[in-house]
Amino acid sequence: MKAEIITIGDEILLGQIVDTNSAWIAQELFAQQIQIQQITSITDTEDHILSALAEAGSRADIIICTGGLGPTKDDVTKFTAAKFFHTDLVFNQDVMDHVQQIFQRFNRTMPDINKGQAEVLANCEVLFNDWGTAPGMWVEHDQKVYIFLPGVPFEMKNLMTFRALPKLKDFQTEEKVVNKYILTVGIGESHLAEHIAEIENSFPDHVHLAYLPKIGLVRLRLTLTGKDIDTLEVEAEEWKNKLVERIGPAVVATEDVSFEEVIVRSFSDHKLTLATAESCTGGNISRLITEIPGSSKMFQGAVVSYANEVKEGVLGVSIETLKAHGAVSEETVIQMVNGVKQLLNVDYAIATSGIAGPDGGTPEKPVGTVWVAVAGKNEVKTKLFHFHHDRLINIERTTAQAFLMLWNLYQAELQN
Amino acid sequence: MKAEIITIGDEILLGQIVDTNSAWIAQELFAQQIQIQQITSITDTEDHILSALAEAGSRADIIICTGGLGPTKDDVTKFTAAKFFHTDLVFNQDVMDHVQQIFQRFNRTMPDINKGQAEVLANCEVLFNDWGTAPGMWVEHDQKVYIFLPGVPFEMKNLMTFRALPKLKDFQTEEKVVNKYILTVGIGESHLAEHIAEIENSFPDHVHLAYLPKIGLVRLRLTLTGKDIDTLEVEAEEWKNKLVERIGPAVVATEDVSFEEVIVRSFSDHKLTLATAESCTGGNISRLITEIPGSSKMFQGAVVSYANEVKEGVLGVSIETLKAHGAVSEETVIQMVNGVKQLLNVDYAIATSGIAGPDGGTPEKPVGTVWVAVAGKNEVKTKLFHFHHDRLINIERTTAQAFLMLWNLYQAELQN
Repeated sequence: MKAEIITIGDEILLGQIVDTNSAWIAQELFAQQIQIQQITSITDTEDHILSALAEAGSRADIIICTGGLGPTKDDVTKFTAAKFFHTDLVFNQDVMDHVQQIFQRFNRTMPDINKGQAEVLANCEVLFNDWGTAPGMWVEHDQKVYIFLPGVPFEMKNLMTFRALPKLKDFQTEEKVVNKYILTVGIGESHLAEHIAEIENSFPDHVHLAYLPKIGLVRLRLTLTGKDIDTLEVEAEEWKNKLVERIGPAVVATEDVSFEEVIVRSFSDHKLTLATAESCTGGNISRLITEIPGSSKMFQGAVVSYANEVKEGVLGVSIETLKAHGAVSEETVIQMVNGVKQLLNVDYAIATSGIAGPDGGTPEKPVGTVWVAVAGKNEVKTKLFHFHHDRLINIERTTAQAFLMLWNLYQAELQN
Repeated sequence: MKAEIITIGDEILLGQIVDTNSAWIAQELFAQQIQIQQITSITDTEDHILSALAEAGSRADIIICTGGLGPTKDDVTKFTAAKFFHTDLVFNQDVMDHVQQIFQRFNRTMPDINKGQAEVLANCEVLFNDWGTAPGMWVEHDQKVYIFLPGVPFEMKNLMTFRALPKLKDFQTEEKVVNKYILTVGIGESHLAEHIAEIENSFPDHVHLAYLPKIGLVRLRLTLTGKDIDTLEVEAEEWKNKLVERIGPAVVATEDVSFEEVIVRSFSDHKLTLATAESCTGGNISRLITEIPGSSKMFQGAVVSYANEVKEGVLGVSIETLKAHGAVSEETVIQMVNGVKQLLNVDYAIATSGIAGPDGGTPEKPVGTVWVAVAGKNEVKTKLFHFHHDRLINIERTTAQAFLMLWNLYQAELQN
């Protein structure tokens, strides 16, 4: 069963928003053995929508369109879809009642413009939207399913979860796909590839390996396709185990989890606690940890010591150190990591201090200069990085390196 | 001048990564008056790549392909592009030398697999990649430009910035586009639309208004197209001013900035400082503030008080309060906000405490129960929210509401 996603609207095309909807939809469909083969982001013009619907319909069985269902003039999806299906929009009293209730719930009068929200495709089944005014619509046409959803992420997610996904369960695919994942850290993509070349070269045709590198880590995805899911599962496990054995200690997980999640789980299992003292990362490390469900078991908290007064007053970095070496220095970052470890009474701690940019650089410490420290049960490790000029990338790289340093220290201490 | 982006690889289609590359490319191109009209994410199979290249070439003048240029077996973009252009891959010694230098720089031996990285399209101009082993390639073919870039974000960004974008400056478009932005907070999309309907209805055909709603805010984008950019600029300013005047105090910015940036700038201008005490948001508010360049002028820091011991020990929330009312309570969040305001010695502070989920809910305080407090010069405001079950959405909504509460208190205090 092949699916495609069409996102309608200029925000993605202008780069104003990142298309997080499609990633979420893809994950959810994949869990039901429905594979997304194309995601297309298009302008909200009639011609473009018509041609995208036709092209997707020629390739896929399920077409999910998001966006352009709002009440305002720039929302043309519904009108265009009516043309595409050679059908009309019809007034639906149930939808109207529902939209009115939403406004009543917030004690607001409904602007007249929302009456149009009750007009739905004549050939659709309405997917009631309890979270907003734009109804979703489910259309079966020429043996394809077209699903129209609003682009607002939480409305889309709720409509998918409670309305569309249950209906999609009836769609079974003949070709089954099994994916297995291996997360490796601290080994480059090409070294990893050389290391496992012999195994990869022995794969039969229906086994495929993808390398998914990110800063400091490579995720491997093993994909097997065939008719019988149980056979595929067994075979996939065998290949996965061969790879894991060959790669050795660089493997940190054998399922599709983030590195942060690996850290959260492993710390929780070992009843260890963590805290961060963040200057240049501004809370990003803490944020990523706390996004993981269950992280409260091991994460005590963070001090974002953006100002020097906070480094000094809360974390106990000495004025002399700040004066003599500056906030971005090995001495400071060591005092930060020890300070937060003591203050929040944890087993492990991370500290970052650097010049994220675009301003604040000096000839001795240009933008991109970053110190990271990690403290464990017995030891403190520090590292100096020279990144580049992009603020967000510097934050991202510092974060990735901090996790890697934490993991390495943690692993070393586990073994002692 | 119309452009399209093709991203190649299964990660986006499986929902494992969010396509941040395309948003970034779109922004950069738009700044050079090149409009992205379609973004297409496809599988890394030969057929799909060939058809996507052909389709994009039939619609656009500039086609930017990212992904699938690595050294491993799953990277087929280069080989497929050679087929598409009916050309060959040729060995390029300069690229080879460069790849070898990269490995030398890190004192590593180059795995043989990387020799293939020196094979480039015979009809291309090489875009040297100083940040990785995969060279970019620039191909002019049938009066179209095809640009091939690696998918690793920082390599792609550097190649675009230093290699491709300077070359694209030579491509001038006949139709000019001017966009103006208005950021509004605290007013719903449909109310806003009704309020400005009269102005919107009087737009001539070449003026278009888009509503870009997010939680708690609506961004308006006014787009004018025509031949003369100076005339368009003047006209766009006039329409923008009319809208701003009509909308009134809900307007917080008249350019394309985030709400966080508005807050950072305004606080900096008024020499006011801010800190946060975050429980359920886990540092997300702090992270968003510190992502803004120059935020160090007004942001002192944050305490992520994930554990109750931190609420108590660092922020000074009383044990009695925690025992009597719990961590997720108005009483606690008030003590948190006052505690961080005093500890970090700031003018304004935000505090959050809630049950983000998926676990931790009780009948009285189900998942999604969130208290937010903001403290200003003279006042503390609190608000209780009942969100839903998705952890990440709960964090996002809490964050958005906290910024809105901060802004409202700040505006009220400015006027007194």
